[in-house]
Amino acid sequence: MEVGFLGLGIMGKAMAMNLLSNGFKVTVWNRTLSKCEELVEHGASVGETPAAVVKKCKYTIAMLSDPPAAISVVFGNDGVLEQMCDGKGYIDMSTVDADTSSKISKAITEVGGRFLEAPVSGSKKPAEDGQLIILAAGEKALYEEMLTAFSVLGKKDFFLGEVGNGAKMKLIVNMIMGSTMNAFSEGLALAGRTGLSPETLIDVLGLGAVGNPMIMMKGPTMLKSNYSPAFPLKHQQKDMRLALALGEENALAMPVAAAANEAFIRAKSLGLGDQDFSAVYEAVKAEGLKQ
Amino acid sequence: MEVGFLGLGIMGKAMAMNLLSNGFKVTVWNRTLSKCEELVEHGASVGETPAAVVKKCKYTIAMLSDPPAAISVVFGNDGVLEQMCDGKGYIDMSTVDADTSSKISKAITEVGGRFLEAPVSGSKKPAEDGQLIILAAGEKALYEEMLTAFSVLGKKDFFLGEVGNGAKMKLIVNMIMGSTMNAFSEGLALAGRTGLSPETLIDVLGLGAVGNPMIMMKGPTMLKSNYSPAFPLKHQQKDMRLALALGEENALAMPVAAAANEAFIRAKSLGLGDQDFSAVYEAVKAEGLKQ
Amino acid sequence: MEVGFLGLGIMGKAMAMNLLSNGFKVTVWNRTLSKCEELVEHGASVGETPAAVVKKCKYTIAMLSDPPAAISVVFGNDGVLEQMCDGKGYIDMSTVDADTSSKISKAITEVGGRFLEAPVSGSKKPAEDGQLIILAAGEKALYEEMLTAFSVLGKKDFFLGEVGNGAKMKLIVNMIMGSTMNAFSEGLALAGRTGLSPETLIDVLGLGAVGNPMIMMKGPTMLKSNYSPAFPLKHQQKDMRLALALGEENALAMPVAAAANEAFIRAKSLGLGDQDFSAVYEAVKAEGLKQ
Amino acid sequence: MEVGFLGLGIMGKAMAMNLLSNGFKVTVWNRTLSKCEELVEHGASVGETPAAVVKKCKYTIAMLSDPPAAISVVFGNDGVLEQMCDGKGYIDMSTVDADTSSKISKAITEVGGRFLEAPVSGSKKPAEDGQLIILAAGEKALYEEMLTAFSVLGKKDFFLGEVGNGAKMKLIVNMIMGSTMNAFSEGLALAGRTGLSPETLIDVLGLGAVGNPMIMMKGPTMLKSNYSPAFPLKHQQKDMRLALALGEENALAMPVAAAANEAFIRAKSLGLGDQDFSAVYEAVKAEGLKQ
Repeated sequence: MEVGFLGLGIMGKAMAMNLLSNGFKVTVWNRTLSKCEELVEHGASVGETPAAVVKKCKYTIAMLSDPPAAISVVFGNDGVLEQMCDGKGYIDMSTVDADTSSKISKAITEVGGRFLEAPVSGSKKPAEDGQLIILAAGEKALYEEMLTAFSVLGKKDFFLGEVGNGAKMKLIVNMIMGSTMNAFSEGLALAGRTGLSPETLIDVLGLGAVGNPMIMMKGPTMLKSNYSPAFPLKHQQKDMRLALALGEENALAMPVAAAANEAFIRAKSLGLGDQDFSAVYEAVKAEGLKQ
Repeated sequence: MEVGFLGLGIMGKAMAMNLLSNGFKVTVWNRTLSKCEELVEHGASVGETPAAVVKKCKYTIAMLSDPPAAISVVFGNDGVLEQMCDGKGYIDMSTVDADTSSKISKAITEVGGRFLEAPVSGSKKPAEDGQLIILAAGEKALYEEMLTAFSVLGKKDFFLGEVGNGAKMKLIVNMIMGSTMNAFSEGLALAGRTGLSPETLIDVLGLGAVGNPMIMMKGPTMLKSNYSPAFPLKHQQKDMRLALALGEENALAMPVAAAANEAFIRAKSLGLGDQDFSAVYEAVKAEGLKQ
Repeated sequence: MEVGFLGLGIMGKAMAMNLLSNGFKVTVWNRTLSKCEELVEHGASVGETPAAVVKKCKYTIAMLSDPPAAISVVFGNDGVLEQMCDGKGYIDMSTVDADTSSKISKAITEVGGRFLEAPVSGSKKPAEDGQLIILAAGEKALYEEMLTAFSVLGKKDFFLGEVGNGAKMKLIVNMIMGSTMNAFSEGLALAGRTGLSPETLIDVLGLGAVGNPMIMMKGPTMLKSNYSPAFPLKHQQKDMRLALALGEENALAMPVAAAANEAFIRAKSLGLGDQDFSAVYEAVKAEGLKQ
Repeated sequence: MEVGFLGLGIMGKAMAMNLLSNGFKVTVWNRTLSKCEELVEHGASVGETPAAVVKKCKYTIAMLSDPPAAISVVFGNDGVLEQMCDGKGYIDMSTVDADTSSKISKAITEVGGRFLEAPVSGSKKPAEDGQLIILAAGEKALYEEMLTAFSVLGKKDFFLGEVGNGAKMKLIVNMIMGSTMNAFSEGLALAGRTGLSPETLIDVLGLGAVGNPMIMMKGPTMLKSNYSPAFPLKHQQKDMRLALALGEENALAMPVAAAANEAFIRAKSLGLGDQDFSAVYEAVKAEGLKQ
């Protein structure tokens, strides 16, 4: 199978490499073209521009850093739209909001192209190991044609229906994560206040029904006040706000998420916005330290 | 090693059987003595009364149904106290509150006895498989002498310090569980409202950082509105209240747990108190159904 | 003093009448010109278009129904901007958001005009009686020149600084109102649940430190489930959301307002969005009625 | 009319004086008997013990400092119970909890006496001016016989039904007060954060529907960080907790009060428990000051 691949950042490079080593013919492009060299050594071809890649390939996958980059690659000079046409497929695996995704989808399909959004859950290591979780939405037939590629890139993929649903699913998962982080932080702080060992609480949780990878991974670093950002607190808070807005649109009251959102805002007011989202623990426990 | 064992309910019987099959000499007692027969077939001796068991054994383990039963076995006629004396150890593995545990501890130690509270996490199956989690607190030396027995009964044990800490640790774990259940329920309801598949949300969660056994086990039954009670909602709400009171005593604000507690109270007002605690999902999602 | 007056709805008509009866020379305009007749009988002149009014008068007051109307009167054909110029003042007393107000302000001042936003608190009766509360912001000198008019229209006026502050002040007042309504509703519901008379609670509150006009006016109608909309619940909820967003921008956690907002959202899900905002009482108390 | 009066603290002395100057014959008792002198100068008789007062008078009013004092005067040596008998009435106007009130009621009525609880709202000044608010509950006929006295002591009285209802009514009023104080504090803090004048916000509120005596009286002192305790924050928080417990018993979710309660707990953790309850404002606004 032959695919184009736009964007060779940490994630994109790992993914393209996986495709190559599984027998795919891959034509790559990156804003900084020199980043293509390592891929070429492993058998990739290079496209000079996004348009050139789309012209050459029936399927083009994009893995860009953020919504502006995703927009620019499609609508800019020498962009995807210039060569998009009947029968060609565009699969955007970048993490973008539902509006950005819809805008790209509309432009692609208006010129006869086919579109799939497919944001992933997982970071560098799962990307290298082909263990991503793929949240696809858009054209069902295109999704099915991409299954061979998805099975190389991820351990599991989902087809979620219409464009925008991939973004919404990520938002809901992140909301649950933010509320759960607060639940855990309050418990951890209460253990500390009552003279129990927070480390032991983590151990006990790990053996029972509420233990999860987040608690087992973040718990020990939280106890060391190590908040090196894997997912910045300000982004977590923004996702809480967007999820609450989604609830409001659908007249769904979510009082626990609302309380968690205010805790993240309090953490931001303490200057923790650029730290890892687990730093909300400081906002929970530090309240007794001020006098 | 020789131990007494008081209480042969679902949990106690499984635990006593485990001790027998691992070479312990066990003298059992149960309020309904006929329940001892099966154990006798596997080699157990029988004590006519709690006092008789204590008289015979250096170590006596109790696994009673609730605080009144735990109190009665110690303080009642022919009770533990009548034969408790210097050097004998009493290990109460029943789930009781910190106050009950302290009362028993005081009485035992005043007559020269040694005391350990050791509530467990886990139900019938883990009890049979020797896979309980044991939260011990009280006399450290007695804890160490009991490790051989604990290694047969549980997959993991913890020593948590002074009497009462076992009960507190369980309370904190349950508080985190209650808040997490609300976080999950809100996400599940939001998925439903926005046209995403709640089943898929559970699958996605199961593959990621917030997935945990509670979500994977309860999620599918919640979607079927099956709330056959493993842990009744009214008990979960009571534990939330007790944990919030513990926070108040220690001047720790826990706004997320407070919001979760109110959600459980709302669920109780909908007549769901005797259902499983996961029935809070009905209170979260049903709000749009009334008109 | 001579002023132009744009917009003769319920509020505007009462205000223009007040100005006339206090000796002001007033040139009025209304989208439906026939509405000007009553004012003419009392001595008003008529302008054919907003532009014509501005051309004739040094000061023009606007009292339009909503942001689109406020925008249209300024930017539309024969609109205010066509005749706005050096030295002329435009005083917008319509209730609009900060963004709309800023947009109008920018356009007016770019062509040399002077601008004041002056939303009011109070409805028909206070408008007729000259008892409005005026929240002015923008050009200080223009504010001072308008004091004669404001003293006729209102019982009290405030100058709040830069454009947008009038809108923000209204938002904060409404947020406090929304949270207070929830506080009151919960108390009212608790009285009912515990067998106390909610009517008596209102009487007791009215005699004490937390009694206020809202409680005394809305309380009795709430007990009759009469929610004829003075201020629709969906608008109250929108203002809560906007106030919470303002808090988020400024890193201020407001957990009580967040909980109140979710209660209004729950009320919306019960189909109460178009009722008076006091209908949140139904969402608070009705929870026990479903079984 | 002749009445006994037990307790001549700040409140009791003012109330007894009012009765005297309105033509009542009053027999007073106080733990420190010398405090009776001033009353004697104005025409009062003195009883040596509570029992002596009850023996002499058909109606005895008590105004003690707290629940233990109220209990002691009734059950202690030479206490009320020793002379209580058929036809005599005991009116306890002390502020006590529902349980204490019920205990006293039971003891009085068991010996044939008649009982009324009648806690008051209002402090020193209203007591002196006969402007208290009286929340009576218990025997209706006794209430009616006391109306002449109540009309001298208060500006308004209420009969609330069975014993305990007076205490409950006070609790609900205090809960509304606590939530409202939080609503106001969040608004005040938001005004400050967004560059609006908090003083002006208070002025605007005072002119509108949510203005109340609490805001107008406490607002200005809060802005000066003056929290000289009229009603200590820790007592306010305790009342919030008791009101939430009352809600829980009646399966009424009160999420706004729950959020307010957590804010008071946070304020306690900042060392503000002995300050006025309005000091919760510090907990709300100070969150941005730590960095």
